[in-house]
Formats: sequence, C-alpha cells, structure tokens
Amino acid sequence: MERPRAREFGILIGEMSPGPLNSITDVEGVGVGHVTLIRGEGKLVPGKGPVRTGVTVILPHGGNLFKEKVIGACFVINGFAKPIGLVQVEELGTIETPIALTNTLNVGIVADALIEYMLELNEDIGVTTGTVNPVVLECNDGWLNDIRGRHVKHQHVFQAIRSAGTAVEEGAVGAGTGMISFEFKGGIGTSSRRLSGKLGGYTVGVLVLSNFGRREDLVIRGAPVGLELRDYCREHNCEGGSIVIVIATDAPLTARQLKRLAKRATHGVARVGGFSSHGSGDIVVAFSTKNRISHYAGRAEVNFKTIPDVALSPLFKAVVEATEEAIVNSLLKAITIVGRDYHKGYAIPIEELERVLGKYGVL
Amino acid sequence: MERPRAREFGILIGEMSPGPLNSITDVEGVGVGHVTLIRGEGKLVPGKGPVRTGVTVILPHGGNLFKEKVIGACFVINGFAKPIGLVQVEELGTIETPIALTNTLNVGIVADALIEYMLELNEDIGVTTGTVNPVVLECNDGWLNDIRGRHVKHQHVFQAIRSAGTAVEEGAVGAGTGMISFEFKGGIGTSSRRLSGKLGGYTVGVLVLSNFGRREDLVIRGAPVGLELRDYCREHNCEGGSIVIVIATDAPLTARQLKRLAKRATHGVARVGGFSSHGSGDIVVAFSTKNRISHYAGRAEVNFKTIPDVALSPLFKAVVEATEEAIVNSLLKAITIVGRDYHKGYAIPIEELERVLGKYGVL
Amino acid sequence: MERPRAREFGILIGEMSPGPLNSITDVEGVGVGHVTLIRGEGKLVPGKGPVRTGVTVILPHGGNLFKEKVIGACFVINGFAKPIGLVQVEELGTIETPIALTNTLNVGIVADALIEYMLELNEDIGVTTGTVNPVVLECNDGWLNDIRGRHVKHQHVFQAIRSAGTAVEEGAVGAGTGMISFEFKGGIGTSSRRLSGKLGGYTVGVLVLSNFGRREDLVIRGAPVGLELRDYCREHNCEGGSIVIVIATDAPLTARQLKRLAKRATHGVARVGGFSSHGSGDIVVAFSTKNRISHYAGRAEVNFKTIPDVALSPLFKAVVEATEEAIVNSLLKAITIVGRDYHKGYAIPIEELERVLGKYGVL
Amino acid sequence: MERPRAREFGILIGEMSPGPLNSITDVEGVGVGHVTLIRGEGKLVPGKGPVRTGVTVILPHGGNLFKEKVIGACFVINGFAKPIGLVQVEELGTIETPIALTNTLNVGIVADALIEYMLELNEDIGVTTGTVNPVVLECNDGWLNDIRGRHVKHQHVFQAIRSAGTAVEEGAVGAGTGMISFEFKGGIGTSSRRLSGKLGGYTVGVLVLSNFGRREDLVIRGAPVGLELRDYCREHNCEGGSIVIVIATDAPLTARQLKRLAKRATHGVARVGGFSSHGSGDIVVAFSTKNRISHYAGRAEVNFKTIPDVALSPLFKAVVEATEEAIVNSLLKAITIVGRDYHKGYAIPIEELERVLGKYGVL
Repeated sequence: MERPRAREFGILIGEMSPGPLNSITDVEGVGVGHVTLIRGEGKLVPGKGPVRTGVTVILPHGGNLFKEKVIGACFVINGFAKPIGLVQVEELGTIETPIALTNTLNVGIVADALIEYMLELNEDIGVTTGTVNPVVLECNDGWLNDIRGRHVKHQHVFQAIRSAGTAVEEGAVGAGTGMISFEFKGGIGTSSRRLSGKLGGYTVGVLVLSNFGRREDLVIRGAPVGLELRDYCREHNCEGGSIVIVIATDAPLTARQLKRLAKRATHGVARVGGFSSHGSGDIVVAFSTKNRISHYAGRAEVNFKTIPDVALSPLFKAVVEATEEAIVNSLLKAITIVGRDYHKGYAIPIEELERVLGKYGVL
Repeated sequence: MERPRAREFGILIGEMSPGPLNSITDVEGVGVGHVTLIRGEGKLVPGKGPVRTGVTVILPHGGNLFKEKVIGACFVINGFAKPIGLVQVEELGTIETPIALTNTLNVGIVADALIEYMLELNEDIGVTTGTVNPVVLECNDGWLNDIRGRHVKHQHVFQAIRSAGTAVEEGAVGAGTGMISFEFKGGIGTSSRRLSGKLGGYTVGVLVLSNFGRREDLVIRGAPVGLELRDYCREHNCEGGSIVIVIATDAPLTARQLKRLAKRATHGVARVGGFSSHGSGDIVVAFSTKNRISHYAGRAEVNFKTIPDVALSPLFKAVVEATEEAIVNSLLKAITIVGRDYHKGYAIPIEELERVLGKYGVL
Repeated sequence: MERPRAREFGILIGEMSPGPLNSITDVEGVGVGHVTLIRGEGKLVPGKGPVRTGVTVILPHGGNLFKEKVIGACFVINGFAKPIGLVQVEELGTIETPIALTNTLNVGIVADALIEYMLELNEDIGVTTGTVNPVVLECNDGWLNDIRGRHVKHQHVFQAIRSAGTAVEEGAVGAGTGMISFEFKGGIGTSSRRLSGKLGGYTVGVLVLSNFGRREDLVIRGAPVGLELRDYCREHNCEGGSIVIVIATDAPLTARQLKRLAKRATHGVARVGGFSSHGSGDIVVAFSTKNRISHYAGRAEVNFKTIPDVALSPLFKAVVEATEEAIVNSLLKAITIVGRDYHKGYAIPIEELERVLGKYGVL
Repeated sequence: MERPRAREFGILIGEMSPGPLNSITDVEGVGVGHVTLIRGEGKLVPGKGPVRTGVTVILPHGGNLFKEKVIGACFVINGFAKPIGLVQVEELGTIETPIALTNTLNVGIVADALIEYMLELNEDIGVTTGTVNPVVLECNDGWLNDIRGRHVKHQHVFQAIRSAGTAVEEGAVGAGTGMISFEFKGGIGTSSRRLSGKLGGYTVGVLVLSNFGRREDLVIRGAPVGLELRDYCREHNCEGGSIVIVIATDAPLTARQLKRLAKRATHGVARVGGFSSHGSGDIVVAFSTKNRISHYAGRAEVNFKTIPDVALSPLFKAVVEATEEAIVNSLLKAITIVGRDYHKGYAIPIEELERVLGKYGVL
C-alpha cells in the first residue's frame, strides 16, 4: 500500500495553499529526475557494497541552462558540507547547470558528469567561450550505503537528467535512497505554496534531501512525535546529519532577494525540531525561473522585472511552510531500507504516527 | 498579582536544565540593567510624547570592558535593522563596551552615551590609545512610543549601567517598554541552560528584546496559541517587527564558534512561529566570558583554551531552547501598556493561555 | 598659492578619462558638502580642544532620499572601524540618507543628526511609516584633533547638507581636517572616470577620506615616493590608519553588482602602497543614482534596467583608477595642519615630489 | 639557459626578507608537487588535445591531513570560479586534504582523486567516521589546452602528491602548464617572507597559479612594463583570467586571523596591475601549520597558542609582498608554450624586461 504524503494524511502545515502537485515542479518548467541504486546486502565490503544511494537532479528549466541561465542564490545554514559550485552562484547570482544531489563522497564524480553533460550540449564551452559551473549538493548516506564505493557514475547522472519530469517520487529514492532523518528513514520530499493573486500569484516550490535529526527532536505541527516514538525501532545512528534544500520560484527576484528566501529555509528546519548540529551540512540553493540571463547577452542595458522587497514576506512564509512540509513528506513517503551491515532505516510507522498526532490534536 | 514566567506556569521548553536564575545572568559576571521611561498619555505629539520606551544594557563582565575585552560574534538573521558596532565585532571578534538595547531612532544618542561612558572610564582613549566601538541594538517601538522624540538620553544609559545586576526584570521594561510581539505586549525575556558536567558544565544564557510576529503565527511548545487567540484584543499593529537576541556563555569559544552559536538563535525564533519577515531586524550578538583579550596585551604569543567544534552541538541546542524560552518569558511577563494615540499592547491573557495549552497537551 | 591636484601636476593615473570635474560630483545629481572645525591650539585638554575635525556629507541625489532611495552596497576591506548603517545597506541594497563622514568618536552624534534631519524632512517616519537608517563612516583624527571632545554637533551636519554642491574642496577640509596619510597630511580627495560611449558612457566617481599608510609605503604611479621622502618632516604618527571610500555611479547596477565594484576599491588602495593594516577601518560604500526605489512603491512588479555582469570590467577599472587618483589628490591638496600638542600633519612637499616623480619617469 | 627568478634578476620586492628558499616551502613541513601534461600539437580536437595542463598539490604537512587537520581560511576576491571545498573551510576553519590546483573543467576528477587518496589513507572514513572535504582550486587554461578533455586523471593527482617536496618548480609546470598572465606565459610562482625575531620570527609563504591580466596593466615594482611591452608578441588572448593564491604560515593563527591574511592577497594582485576583472576567479586559501586539530580529539577543552591581532600587521605585509613576488616569479620563470591551434603563450622577454626596468630605475 502506498504511504501517504503529509497532506493526504491530514497533516496541514501552515496556512498557505500548495500548488496542484504540491511539489517543486509546480513552478513552471522545473523538472526533477532520480536514479536509485540498490545492490547487494549484508556486511560492508568497503568500496564494493552494499549500495544504497543514488542521484537526484533538479532542472530549473527544460532548455539549455548554460545558454539561458537562471538567477540563483545560496545560503549556508551550517557548512560541515561539501557542496560544489556555490562560490560562483554567490558572485554572479546565476545557475547554469542542473542541480545535482547525491552522497558526500560522490560529489567529484557527479560534478564531472555534469561538466560532461554540459560539454556535450555546448560545443562552445572551453573552445570559443568560457567554462561551466556545476552545482552539486550532498548528504552522507554512509550508515546504509557503502559510501566509499562512490557508486553513482556518469551514466546515472545523465539518466537522471533524461528522466526528469514533473512527477516527483519521494522518500527512499534518488539521492534519498540511503538517508536517515530523526533516526527514521528519510530522503527526498517536496512541497509548494501558491500565493494569492493579490500577493502576485507566485509559486514557491521546495525539494529537500533530508538526512538529519535526533529522534527525540522530531516535531510535526507542534506534536512531539519524536519523544512519543522515542524507542520505536531505534538504532541510534544519528551523528548530526544534514539537509539539502532547493527552492524554486517563478517570482521575478534578484539574487539578493533569493538569498533572503534561502535563509528562511532555516525556519522550516527548526519547526520540525532541527537545530543544525555541528556535524550538519545544511545548504540551501534558491532560483527564480524568471529573468533568465542569456550567455551571449552582450553588454547593452537590459530590462528586467522584479518585485519590491516589501512584497517578499509572503514568499518567505511560503518557503518556511513548504520546507517544513517537504521534510515531513520525506519521512512519510520513505519506506524501510536495510543497508550495509544490516543497518536499518525504519520507515516512520503510520499507525503510531496517527495515534500521536491525534493525541496532540493535530489530526 | 505577579505574572508567571514560562517555567513557573508549567511550560517546559526543551530538555536541558536552566541555570539557577534561568537568566542570562546565570553566566557568571554578566549583569543586566534597565531604565524604563513612561511619561504622558493620549494623542501623539511627535517629538514630545507619550513616552513608552527605555534602554537595557548587558554587561559581559563587571570590570572595564575596554581594558578586558570579551570574545564576541554576531549574526544577522534579517538586516532591516540599525545595529551599531557589528563591523568591528565581525573583524576582531571582540566586544569592548556594554551592549545597549533601545528603540530604533535612539541608536545615535545611545551610541554616543556609551562612548562617553567609556571615555570617562578610560582616560587613554583618544589620547594615547585608539578609539572605542559601542555596540547598540534596537527595535522599533513606534506603535506605543513617540519614537521620533528619542527620549532615551545619556543619563538613562549611565543609569542603566550603574543599576546592572543579576536580577533581570522581564516584559515591558527597559528597551522592552514599548515593544509588541505576536500582537501582544512583548519586550524583554531571558532564559538559560546549563550543560551537564559530562558535556563541560557550561552555561548558556539568552536575553531577547522581542518585538515581532503576527498573531496567528504564535506557537508555544507546539500549541497554536496564536490561532486560538486570533481575535483576542487585537489591534492589528503588526508590520513585520524585529527581535534582538544576546547570547552569553562561559564556554571558552573562539569568535568563529560564537558565530555558529549565534546562528542557532534563528531556530529558537522559528519555534515560536517567527519567520523573520521582510521588515524585521533580527540581530544576534554572542559573547564568551572566558579568554578575555587585554587591551594592552602586546604582541607575544598567548595561550588560550577552547573546545573542539565537535563539542558544540549541546551549546547549539542550549541556544535554541533558551531563545525560545526567553521569547515566551517576554510575552508572559509583559503587562498591558497603553501608549500613543491610545494604542494598546495587550498582555497575553494568562487564563486563556492556560486553556489553550491544556487543550493541546502542553500543560 | 593653490596646491595642484594630481592631474594638474602631471600625474596621470590609469588610462581612462575623468569626467569634467574629475570628482564624485561628475555623477549627475551627487552633491558634497563640508563643515570644517578648527579652533584653539596647543596642549590637548581632553574634551575641550584643540579642535581639528569636521564632517563631510555625500548626497546621492538632491531630493528626499528617504522617499526616493538609491541602490547601494558596501564592502569591508578591514573592519577595525565604527561605521553605522551598513547592516541594512547589505540586506536591502538601499541607501536612504546622506552619507556622512566624520571622526570616529563622533559617529553617534552624527548619526543622531542625520536621523533628526530625516525626521524633519519626513513627518511620516515613526508615525505612519517605519524608521530610517543613517549611514555614517569615520576615521580617527585623534593625532591632530581632540577627538574625545566630539566637536561635530547636529548643526554642523545640517550645515554640511545645506551647503552641498558639485564643487568639492579637497584636502584638510570637512571630515578630512585632522586626517593623516602616509605620515603626511591627508583628508578628502575625489576623482572620476567616464566610460566611452561604446562601454555605456557611464560615470564612476570616488570620494575618499584618507587617513592611512606608513611613510615608506607611499607609491605614486609606481614611484617609491615614500622611500625617497622617508625622513621629510616626519613625526612617526602612524599606527595603522584607515580609509573611507564612497563610490557613485550612474550605471544602472543592482546591489550585488555594486558590491563587486566596492571590492575593487581595495586595488586602488594597494596601488598607492596601502596594505590595510590590522588597525585600519577600510570601508567602502557604493551607490547607483539610477533605478531609485520609492518608499511607497507598493508591492507590484516593477521594471528596472541593469547591465549584464560581463559589462562590469570597465566599471571595476574605473573604480581602481579613481580611487588611486582620489587618494593622491587628498595628499596633494592637503595643507599643513598643526594640531593638539603641536603635532603637525605636514603637507606633502610639492617640489620634492616633483623631483622624485621626475627621477622615476612619472613626470 | 635557466630563466631567473625575480630576486635573482635584481627585482627586489618589498622590504621584508624571504626565507632560504623564497618559497611556500620555507614554512616548515609544507610540500609542493607537480605533474605536467604536454601531449600533441596543432589544431584543437575537442576532448583529444593538444594537452597543455597539469596538477599542482600543496601539502600543509607531510602526515595524514585527515587525522591531523590544519587551521585554514579562504577569501574570494572575485568568485567567477569553481573552487571545491571552501564552504567547510569557512565553517570549521580546517583543511584536511592536500590542496590541489588544476584546470577549471578538471575539478570534479581531481576532487574525486583527492577523495580516493584520502580513503586509501584512512580506512575509517565512511565506515566508522565521517567523510572528507577535498580542496581543489582552478584556473582556465583553455587558450593553450584542450580543456574539454579533462586530461588530468586520478593517477596524476596521486603522482603529484607522492612527488611533493620542498623544491618548487615554477612557471609552465603542473597546474601552470597552460596558464597565461598579462598575455605572457604565466603559471606557478612562489615566494616567502620571514619576520624578524622581534616580530615573532614567523614565516609566510605564498604560491600562486597566475592566469590573469591584460598586457597594458602589468606593473613590476612600479615600472609600467606592460605599457612598454604592449605590442611584444601579443596574441590578445585575455578575457579576464584568474589567480589562485595559497598562503602558508607557521604563525599560530586562528581561522579568523587567517582570513584576514587571505584578504591581503588582493593587495599583492593589485600591485602588479591586476584589478580582478569580472571574469576572474581570484581565490585565496590560507593555512597555519601550527595548532593542528586532531580528528579524534574528543570534546575536552584544549589549549592552543595564538598571537594577538595587534601583531598581525607584519604578517599582512608579508602576504602582500610574497604574493607580488610570487606573481612576478610565475612570469619570469615561465617558458614559451605553444598550444592548441598554435596559440602561443610567450615567455616574458628577459632582455626587454631588463631594459624597461632599467629605464624606470628598478634595476
């Protein structure tokens, strides 16, 4: 039986309405693709397996991102992390490749795969024009996965890009395959919010790769779920853990404004009980699909639209709500995964959860 | 009848234990002083009154701060704000004056008062040695107070410093006199956490000046208090609003580590429902009372103690918990204040609150 | 006899052409005003005199800056400094008051004066709208001036604003009255660059308050002037010292782009021999006079012009050249000033300089 | 005949003395290794050749860097760049792998090679402890090299590490093989400064990968070399270009202090005529070989030495001087390289240079 998403289950987070898919892909043009790698079982043979990992890509639009860049920004909640590409995002305020999520030790290979993908798409790179800046984000799935094996290969990245679409699978898929959250199985989650027409009618979508949190700290809509399920199938596997958060919007924002949005992902993390422990690599990347920057734009003045900062608060709130809901979705949708050394990432138990949420008036 | 603090009321936030005073002054040597200014009533006469404002000072230690600086750091959650002194704190990692909190338009006068205070204490400043860097933080109390009048004068700052001690009055006092939070009366709140001996036995204390939040957003220990009290005595006076957060600890931290602590104040703000709206000036300053920096230290190598970053997570958690509790304290302790144009900052109603918290299993 | 500016003297810095005034006021609408305070002589009586100080204001445009803000950014080369207002400039990317330069201990009073000025101009501030963010920058003139006296008062700030125009006096005037550079008399200097029409025809103007540098380090167009004049009338008064740099342009830039410009002031400082010593407060503020932000703009989308980042390099170069030339102008134009305790800030000797520059092929 | 280094040639930059090797390896324990890849000639066959590239590694010490990390910091002068690993350096203030320099499109492979190298050295990574943060820096050598080919492979990185020692080859070697500076052949350069015993006796070493600058802008010790040699064998190949700067010191600095050092590399770049154009990726990494951080340190308080910030100015000056000299060394030592499509990177002509420097009194 299909596990429910938060909203299907009756967990209504925040006051704003989600888009039709309640997904980052509600932002028009955005696509998401996963490749999930599950191979072998039993004792860890470092470099060999078992494999419980994957790659997830977010495409800001379906065209050639190098030729038509999107405006982007990033924020580091906590930087015990190995993201690639953020220095240029910070300086230029643009993103020019798909955004790839994977495991920590795979960032080099995945960056090279993104480079290769962009080279094939753009014969001018490195010949008649400059180079390209791959964006790769990661969490450590080493408790379930043979992370030393760096099992995500070039072909997996290409495949994830090719398979990208608007239907986003959640839970133990793609980069989320081996991730753990609140000592339950975590992984990929997504959600969105749509502002009323009066507030501009913009959409904000969030996708998370959730791999953080101590069991006791989990809070869902205020209910102390983690305390109530403190001893449920617990393997005490938490040492910090991380979260990657990608924010998309069709609001016409500048990089400075997107950075302001990115910062608000922190509040979403906090609302489920995260505190961004020392060991966390909590990284946020945000982009707008409006105001694309053409690679060969030339030097002449250009017009672009933006919104006054005074109109940003509803977008901030949308980020907070969608981040919170995306994290809860990542927990609800994830199935139990048994990995290396028979370590188990237990799916959060739906019936127990129903009981707890009922007790605290959430359901 | 005295209004209760959160903990007295039965609201137990987090899992760590507070220090004996449950106050920033649990960090040894730290003192806090207030001067509260309440004069006049009725229609606003800009520049004249009514006056509902004040100043609060935090003394990192009782000695001469210029001669014995403390290590400090800051973090800007949202910078629609007029803090003074943070550039030097960021560069040098030191704080060398009392930290003053006041209303937004009073920052110039209060900075000058801190300068004057330090000059009197240090005859060498500007004669045989360099200058001094006052630290002033602020929120806008203009809904209750004639903020144009800049009624906080030099003498009030001196008086607040002289009166500083370990007993910290909370609510509508000092800089908190005219502040509003979640469309209730807000202001000053404080709380602390003490780590177990195994974790180093350190104390973390937080003092907030709370002036932020939309009514619907208020959450206390997960209970949607704001939604339940949505229409209680509401004056719809919220336009963003801000919070200032000061963190003290006796853990021997570097400036880099203190900045990491400061960032976690965000999580505390988020847990009561804040999302740091566009209009907010949410500023965090953190300091350690250990490893003081002598002004005339010379150039020779010095030894100092610190703790490995791997030991920071409990301190992060302490910041989150104490920030959350300090905000709730600022609400619970604040009494109703009627200000300019008969605007009212209503105290959060204790009986109603009891009912709501009971309904959601918090009490 | 009038002392020459660099270019009049034959020192041609860089390859780009200055605007007609070779001044920050070549950027249309920008005004500059000074008030110079010189009173008393002889032994320092702390708090009384002698007075060798002042205030300089830069007006980004001649209208009501609060109602029509300009886009701005800042960069901290070295933050042993007490600037006011930069946190909000960083967050919102706007400047909404005149930019005031003064001595370090006067920042509180000058900030309050800017607040008062803006309040008088805007009856809505603090009544029906929010507050205002004064921008104040400073250097330490305590070697010539009784800096403890904080002799710059509100009226001086108002007077500087009222007197602002396009003719910019340089050297020992305004905030520059008591400043020292390379152990010569320093102070205010300005310069500009105009891009060719092909590059957009934009103007970049720079104004510096120069108060930094060890004698030996001074380099003018590559000539080791400081080494050659090592012993000329030297008082060994240097302990670090600082520089404030204000950049104006009519290029339609975003705040992110302006920050990129601001960073290049560093290169200009370096080219005259500065290395931003530990004790320096080297602060850069940049603004564009285009794309003003209306305070009551509302929330609807707005159009604005900008230029692609690929077109920024000539603007960067303009900043470097104009900063370098403005510093040299501050030295050449400054007359000898005798201050507290008979300390002397000697004007750089024109004839000696001519000899040295000739020797190294600069003249 | 061997081309001379700057100092051998009589170009004496700055006033401080170099260490015995005038190299980054004057900092005890630091090693540098290169692998140079030169294969094929003639027309570019994208992905095949000609190959004019390589990799350079800097080892902060000769032990296991993951187990004994060094304190580090970074600074982004201009971020049109693809560095890897800086987010964690910024957050934790540590470096735990060799620092690798290579061409821009090779960063993914080189990062993966560093990961692999560290995995082989540390069986605990990803099994019983966390992951590892490779640091990779880059410039674009695509004017001489088939950069699309990503010809630097894992084995080259391993080989560079194995070959690392204290003798540092300069010019067109390692990562510098295909780099261009001031439209001459550039590449690797190094220099050092030793403080007097009175100032602590510390050593500061700098290694640069120089790939920036327009011909006209080149200045050597103040002489306008670029203007004088404006038309010498010029191929007008400059589009911005970048520089990577690595700073090592044995002074016991904190990460905050190292960041302050890193910023001063800017001044060194400026002094040879760089202005950090839009297209530049000018990245600085600094580390101290003192106060190593043990990976398994535990949580107890530790003592460490540091120096007061007031003692930093001589270290700043050392960074400026050594950066300037390292850049000049990279130019002087580089031989002419002919690359893809018969593009030529001409070595700066020694005799012409002698003439120009003589003319301006430098030699």
